[in-house]
Amino acid sequence: MSENKIWSNSGDSHLVEPRRLFEDNLPADLAERMPRSVKDPDGAFETVYVDGQEFRRAMPRPGAAQVNLARPADADPDEARAPGANDPVLRLTDSDQEGIWAEVIYPSLGIWAFNIRDPKLVREGVKVLNDWAIDFQNHSPRYVVCASIPLLDVDDAVAEVRRTAGLGFHVGFFPTREPFGRPPYQHEEWDPLWAAMEETGMVVGFHIGTEPHTPDQRTGVYHRGRGGAVLNYVETTYGGQRCVTQMIASGALDRYPALRVLVSEGGATWGPFIADRMDEGYRQHSAAVRPTLSKLPSEYLYTQVYASFQHDRSAVQANAAMGWKNVMWGSDYPHYEGTYGHTQKTLHELFDDAPPEVSRRCRLGAFEELFPHVPPLPHDLRQ
Amino acid sequence: MSENKIWSNSGDSHLVEPRRLFEDNLPADLAERMPRSVKDPDGAFETVYVDGQEFRRAMPRPGAAQVNLARPADADPDEARAPGANDPVLRLTDSDQEGIWAEVIYPSLGIWAFNIRDPKLVREGVKVLNDWAIDFQNHSPRYVVCASIPLLDVDDAVAEVRRTAGLGFHVGFFPTREPFGRPPYQHEEWDPLWAAMEETGMVVGFHIGTEPHTPDQRTGVYHRGRGGAVLNYVETTYGGQRCVTQMIASGALDRYPALRVLVSEGGATWGPFIADRMDEGYRQHSAAVRPTLSKLPSEYLYTQVYASFQHDRSAVQANAAMGWKNVMWGSDYPHYEGTYGHTQKTLHELFDDAPPEVSRRCRLGAFEELFPHVPPLPHDLRQ
Repeated sequence: MSENKIWSNSGDSHLVEPRRLFEDNLPADLAERMPRSVKDPDGAFETVYVDGQEFRRAMPRPGAAQVNLARPADADPDEARAPGANDPVLRLTDSDQEGIWAEVIYPSLGIWAFNIRDPKLVREGVKVLNDWAIDFQNHSPRYVVCASIPLLDVDDAVAEVRRTAGLGFHVGFFPTREPFGRPPYQHEEWDPLWAAMEETGMVVGFHIGTEPHTPDQRTGVYHRGRGGAVLNYVETTYGGQRCVTQMIASGALDRYPALRVLVSEGGATWGPFIADRMDEGYRQHSAAVRPTLSKLPSEYLYTQVYASFQHDRSAVQANAAMGWKNVMWGSDYPHYEGTYGHTQKTLHELFDDAPPEVSRRCRLGAFEELFPHVPPLPHDLRQ
Repeated sequence: MSENKIWSNSGDSHLVEPRRLFEDNLPADLAERMPRSVKDPDGAFETVYVDGQEFRRAMPRPGAAQVNLARPADADPDEARAPGANDPVLRLTDSDQEGIWAEVIYPSLGIWAFNIRDPKLVREGVKVLNDWAIDFQNHSPRYVVCASIPLLDVDDAVAEVRRTAGLGFHVGFFPTREPFGRPPYQHEEWDPLWAAMEETGMVVGFHIGTEPHTPDQRTGVYHRGRGGAVLNYVETTYGGQRCVTQMIASGALDRYPALRVLVSEGGATWGPFIADRMDEGYRQHSAAVRPTLSKLPSEYLYTQVYASFQHDRSAVQANAAMGWKNVMWGSDYPHYEGTYGHTQKTLHELFDDAPPEVSRRCRLGAFEELFPHVPPLPHDLRQ
């Protein structure tokens, strides 16, 4: 192991569910309505079938700088991007190679479950997903896999939070906008869910880019024409910022002071910005503010909200200069946008010039604070 | 003058147009379709009539901390918030009292012109507005009043840019989303307008919260229920960030390298964040990026984009620690969200602990760079 290898935890990683998960574990009439992906013959697009809806999505593809030269040219891009992408044992080999210690791991196909419209289907479907995911997590204490939560009925949600917390999950996965037909996250109807999350110690994990949408919208495409790729990439971050604002402005983080929120893959420098913006609105529009909070909005963000970033220079400064200690690095393994294959380069670029305590906090400390049950990176690998 | 008074330019201020501006200067059939506001008897709401549409809007009201105790209880809140709000001569008294030197000044009623659907009406209407506004500007070299631009026809837009630049305007006022029926700002149809703005040295001034909307939407209300006031305040900032992304990702700032963009009242710390986010999307999705740019997206943002903030602690750090030099302070005079009555307190809180060069750049230098025609703050008042 090179002596200048630096290690980091990751606040943003992914797994890929097995193709036959739902067929093998649900009655046929339910299984056929759970999310499944069918790729076009040319590999450029996939169609995701969910509960009678069809979503078209451009398949992820590597940017020119990100090509993994080791993968066979005819490999399924979902599976070949990193050798351990779909395998909980090989994954550790990839992690050790990259210098990634512990990871928050989100579902892939499970993201589509937020588009289910039938409360019974989502309730039964995510149970199967979670029962499989806990087996994945149990392969290594370095894995923090997210439980999927059925959000169409708050009683079902509370029950699955309690069940999955009992199974050993530490994060519940939430989309960056509520499912269709449900009230926005600031609504009181969600309070029993936040109460259950707090009581069980489950972190609210918002992963950006997971807004439910109608099949007539192309997934991830908000802008077209010149600049569309960059515009769409930037657009994804606002959903996570909005969710944090909803959780704070509605008083959820005030009423449930042990509740913690993680926003994954949305960058981090927005934190101090939204904190200031909320404080300004809270003060300058005080006559219209409901509810009043026991602290300024920024104080909840600085203490109860965490965020992961991958390449952002400014994220390290958001910790070092703006004092938001809850900035954590994330690899987005095994996605093309992520750092697989160049993790060490990324980590060195980000942290070599940072003060040691800032580097350690972003790479290790913030994650360790949020997930104290995870064994920390061994002492001889820390720096 | 107290010796610890510190002065600042403002990148975000407003004027209020006279009530009879359009009646007195347009044929009746056009005048009656230009924006006019009618307040409810109880003063809580106004209805704005524009080109056959009616928009309902909650009247601005002071937050508890912002009450101007000097104003009569029965005063029209639009007019009484600051003695010089509607008067280009008295305004200088207010400015001197507050410690504000030069200002970028946006229209008030003129914001509603972006909801006009008739190209002829907006073309003729904004000419009247601009002819009045240039008289306002001519009261003081410290005033940088924004020209309104008719955006429903790009030839009209180009013509009014040239006309107003000739009159002495230095900023064109743009809404944070294009008017209905027009292509988004990344579209090539806008190129002649950006070319004209660059050629005439006119700054593209985006003021947040100016998105055209349909009358069935309550102005400024995106979120309801608990936390709504703070949520709506935060929401306003995304439009300005999106416009900057459109201008950069579409290549407009690459093709027109002398073009400058100012985002007013949207805060500033989003700048380094969006810069990093654009760079990440540009690199990681390079296979889908069109057009390619001659520099990284962040480089355009750091050089050609400026932003104003009012109270944000982190904005000063966005300059000091993240290196975005184009952060400028703004007063939002005479609005309730602004600093009127507590400008010195705000400036001292923000800048007393900042390095002198950072303080000077945010208060004076960035503005002076963007508007070199404005006489700088006299030497004996600088610090």
